[in-house]
Amino acid sequence: MVRLTRRYRFCASHRLNVPQLCDLENQVIYGKCNNPWGHGHDYVLEVSVAGPLDARTGQVVNPRDLDSLVGETVLAEFDHRNLNSDVAAFEWAVPTSENVAREIERRLEEAWPLRFPEGTPALAGIRLHETKRNSFEIAR
Amino acid sequence: MVRLTRRYRFCASHRLNVPQLCDLENQVIYGKCNNPWGHGHDYVLEVSVAGPLDARTGQVVNPRDLDSLVGETVLAEFDHRNLNSDVAAFEWAVPTSENVAREIERRLEEAWPLRFPEGTPALAGIRLHETKRNSFEIAR
Amino acid sequence: MVRLTRRYRFCASHRLNVPQLCDLENQVIYGKCNNPWGHGHDYVLEVSVAGPLDARTGQVVNPRDLDSLVGETVLAEFDHRNLNSDVAAFEWAVPTSENVAREIERRLEEAWPLRFPEGTPALAGIRLHETKRNSFEIAR
Amino acid sequence: MVRLTRRYRFCASHRLNVPQLCDLENQVIYGKCNNPWGHGHDYVLEVSVAGPLDARTGQVVNPRDLDSLVGETVLAEFDHRNLNSDVAAFEWAVPTSENVAREIERRLEEAWPLRFPEGTPALAGIRLHETKRNSFEIAR
Amino acid sequence: MVRLTRRYRFCASHRLNVPQLCDLENQVIYGKCNNPWGHGHDYVLEVSVAGPLDARTGQVVNPRDLDSLVGETVLAEFDHRNLNSDVAAFEWAVPTSENVAREIERRLEEAWPLRFPEGTPALAGIRLHETKRNSFEIAR
Amino acid sequence: MVRLTRRYRFCASHRLNVPQLCDLENQVIYGKCNNPWGHGHDYVLEVSVAGPLDARTGQVVNPRDLDSLVGETVLAEFDHRNLNSDVAAFEWAVPTSENVAREIERRLEEAWPLRFPEGTPALAGIRLHETKRNSFEIAR
Repeated sequence: MVRLTRRYRFCASHRLNVPQLCDLENQVIYGKCNNPWGHGHDYVLEVSVAGPLDARTGQVVNPRDLDSLVGETVLAEFDHRNLNSDVAAFEWAVPTSENVAREIERRLEEAWPLRFPEGTPALAGIRLHETKRNSFEIAR
Repeated sequence: MVRLTRRYRFCASHRLNVPQLCDLENQVIYGKCNNPWGHGHDYVLEVSVAGPLDARTGQVVNPRDLDSLVGETVLAEFDHRNLNSDVAAFEWAVPTSENVAREIERRLEEAWPLRFPEGTPALAGIRLHETKRNSFEIAR
Repeated sequence: MVRLTRRYRFCASHRLNVPQLCDLENQVIYGKCNNPWGHGHDYVLEVSVAGPLDARTGQVVNPRDLDSLVGETVLAEFDHRNLNSDVAAFEWAVPTSENVAREIERRLEEAWPLRFPEGTPALAGIRLHETKRNSFEIAR
Repeated sequence: MVRLTRRYRFCASHRLNVPQLCDLENQVIYGKCNNPWGHGHDYVLEVSVAGPLDARTGQVVNPRDLDSLVGETVLAEFDHRNLNSDVAAFEWAVPTSENVAREIERRLEEAWPLRFPEGTPALAGIRLHETKRNSFEIAR
Repeated sequence: MVRLTRRYRFCASHRLNVPQLCDLENQVIYGKCNNPWGHGHDYVLEVSVAGPLDARTGQVVNPRDLDSLVGETVLAEFDHRNLNSDVAAFEWAVPTSENVAREIERRLEEAWPLRFPEGTPALAGIRLHETKRNSFEIAR
Repeated sequence: MVRLTRRYRFCASHRLNVPQLCDLENQVIYGKCNNPWGHGHDYVLEVSVAGPLDARTGQVVNPRDLDSLVGETVLAEFDHRNLNSDVAAFEWAVPTSENVAREIERRLEEAWPLRFPEGTPALAGIRLHETKRNSFEIAR
């Protein structure tokens, strides 16, 4: 079994604000991230897959298959976008990086069996770096 | 003479769109950067100063003086902001990184003599990295 | 459950020398790190926390709470310090990065229930990078 | 128990091509990596060891012991080499990074008990970065 | 006048060997880089352009124009290639990074007036990073 | 003419304190860097040389010649040292990075004609990075 991790980038903006909370609460909780007009980041997304080596090709996965899956299900809708306004999942949920990571993982899990119907390789996890100072992983 | 370069970060969002151009022109020129709701970056700003060494302290500049100047004139208004909506200069000018770099340099030049009235150290230049793939400098 | 990792930096000096060993033994074991007057590093500290998402805020932890905890218990006493002379724990223990990592984890574990009395999020682990070439984690 | 990870670099070239497949299959599977004359990378190899702290030295392992083990068994034969032509293991196996990682781990496991006969520290795993965009780990 | 620098990557292999020199001379001069079967690198190429801002777009150059120029004249023939065997210029010249940088600059200068017939922006220079430890610039 | 820049690392400790100033002045000027027992950094030193290409070898300089010059005149005495106590130049001068950069350049200039008696390549400059946030160059 080998675990392969590939790294992708996307530039996006967001605003952290929960409508159910009052302005003061939002400011106390989110600080500068509550700025009314938003701000943005160069996100780095690491996607890990795990599986046995294909005896013929010596690969866990053809990297182009993984790239097109991530490209279609995540990058095409997140890159150069405003997460609050452009991604339906954040119409109701606040786009903290925790929630962004969950949404990315949800999308990959949903599309995975269509691309890899034989169940191999498996999605082994993702890691989303919001900035150079923090990153987020969903426990599996 | 020694040249000191210090590095700062700010997270901001922007949208590249020129009202005088039609939608199609804006899309052709700016591509994904024309997304109606904007996107964002983790900008890296390098500020260089040059001057003789202070014979007593062995320094070109006290780094805290430079940090407070950059903090007050640039970071306080650019970090965690939407450049189009939160920075007056971009009410009329499109916030390409070229224009953002010019605005940053303009602000530093304006405030410089107030902080460093003796003319030393001099502002030697800035470099603005929009992403890891591109950076912008104003010729001096 | 989401795992959040935040990254901190501190500049410190140290000397690797065990008084119970003779000079020759210390030199053989620690090589250049035994230099009598010490040397230093720009340490990078990664602190990971894990827990369920707060349904209201969409966060595992408010990053400012974590920052103040790490700032008060670690950075305030390690940054711009000599580990041998300024940190009591290294009066008797040699400040190898293994021991520095253990001391950092001990401090975080001790202060954790005071800051997070409800037991969530949990401290999920630390990683201490001494240089770009080596890093240390305490098994949990 | 502490886990130490050290980072090494080697520059090497390789070509991905399986003789049992026809030219077209090789091109479809490996794309640009099938270029007849090969290409190359600056590989980064992370080697992790785990064990109890030596009570006397405060170390998991003397880093020079680990460096000489990795240097002799891996770097001496992989650095500034063509993996296909210079490393016997790839006379028959295609040098995908999956297979390169496996060969590196096999070499380390084989040499480990000669260097560390007391079984401590243990080899805890390796991670091979082919480029900044992808890395490979062998599940243990 | 603004100077824009964009960064590109290419993976390539090469061998440093001058046929006019004997084997011993080649080994003394090039050391490990003389390995008969070659080795490789992840090269990073920085291309700088300089010019006035386009008053309408606020840009020095449309980045896609620059990307397609660099892509067609350099990356298409250097990425995932063996420089000695795949690039005609190195049939006679040894592909040291000095010579690779010269060849890249020669190609860009040749194609520049076809892409930018009005003379603006100007090619302001290139910088070729062979590894993280060394880089090469052609004086202009 | 080609300009080659090579990158070196050294770990060192220092304390910023000027005996002619009182304790309060030293604290105000140097802040945390005045800590009585010092602190340390992983310095990165870039050394640039410039010259014509050697027509025979296609190189500006043999990198091993430059490495041994930098190694003998700088790294051997700065790496894993306390700059205040171990380097004679800082017995009287405060080891700010400005002064450290000047001392490094002085040493290289002094040794240069012994190693490169024909005047080529020339020392084109140095850049000393104290941390990831600041760097220092001597104007030439």
